[in-house]
Amino acid sequence: MDKERMQKQIDFILKMDEEKNILRQTHLTHQGRRENDAEHAWHMALMAYLLREYSNKPVDISRVMIMCLIHDVVEIEAGDTYAYDEEGKKTQKEREEKAADHLFSLLPSDQEEEMRSIFEEFDAYQTPESKFAHAMDNFQPLLLNDSNHGSDWKEHKVSRKQVEGRQSLTAFGSKEIYEKIEEILDAHEADGSLKHE
Amino acid sequence: MDKERMQKQIDFILKMDEEKNILRQTHLTHQGRRENDAEHAWHMALMAYLLREYSNKPVDISRVMIMCLIHDVVEIEAGDTYAYDEEGKKTQKEREEKAADHLFSLLPSDQEEEMRSIFEEFDAYQTPESKFAHAMDNFQPLLLNDSNHGSDWKEHKVSRKQVEGRQSLTAFGSKEIYEKIEEILDAHEADGSLKHE
Repeated sequence: MDKERMQKQIDFILKMDEEKNILRQTHLTHQGRRENDAEHAWHMALMAYLLREYSNKPVDISRVMIMCLIHDVVEIEAGDTYAYDEEGKKTQKEREEKAADHLFSLLPSDQEEEMRSIFEEFDAYQTPESKFAHAMDNFQPLLLNDSNHGSDWKEHKVSRKQVEGRQSLTAFGSKEIYEKIEEILDAHEADGSLKHE
Repeated sequence: MDKERMQKQIDFILKMDEEKNILRQTHLTHQGRRENDAEHAWHMALMAYLLREYSNKPVDISRVMIMCLIHDVVEIEAGDTYAYDEEGKKTQKEREEKAADHLFSLLPSDQEEEMRSIFEEFDAYQTPESKFAHAMDNFQPLLLNDSNHGSDWKEHKVSRKQVEGRQSLTAFGSKEIYEKIEEILDAHEADGSLKHE
């Protein structure tokens, strides 16, 4: 056994623990507390497995799952940027690149390269796997928010147009899931939890 | 699209959200708060991917990952049983079977069967995938506890013999990880965070 290699892997694994303290804007079901990044990633990976039949194209499910599990780890050092925070989004890319450089460098170099490429694949939104992982990234908080009668949207005064701007990308991963999303948004527009524009 | 099928999947996915409120005895790194089941499962699945080279036998990594993600979901209805709680362990099996019957029945029947079989495979400890997933289940809290100078063991007055009783099973999944564990336990026995017997 290469002890130095295993120690590097353990150092990275322990660093990842900090993802459990990065809070998102989404609240848990039953009007719960705010969700953290690790919980969100767990939920997404589980959803990806259960909903894989709806992917527009066949996917390598283990690649989708690992992508879901790590897609937000850079937020340990770059912080969470809310989907509708236009100011924060201007510096998001730069902050996250810097964090990725540092965090993945904790791993042995072959795994640094591997995890970096999975992370970049997600970001680039080109492969069927990354499109489906993004669909989960969008659908998961929408489901929680729907179960809470749209309270996260109400709190941030989000409009249907804003939600659709983001969620329309979900259709690149899964047209069927996007159909369901449209149905959910119709209901929230009707009951006023989504702002009209 | 079969709307009834998708609705069942969504109902299950939302029920799973409750796993984020099941607290474990383990504390996060930096002497943090108690960890919950969803965070633990996320961490385990990520570890399984990163440490798969140490599995005694080749594994189907997507099966290990989904096993890690769902292995504790029954605790939503059966509660968490601490690894060294001998009383609780007497009724654990029965409570968890009942919860599995109910929770997986929320899914469409083909997926109910699939998830049930993954859950039972984990429990049966026979396949290379389940042995490696168990190794992650044991190693993950040990790493957190090690990073916290053994404070969880001190709190519960756990002895090295007790920890070894559980961790020795880790060797069925990964001899190399078990070697590392022995090294960690040596250090904690030496500094007194593990009780002598």
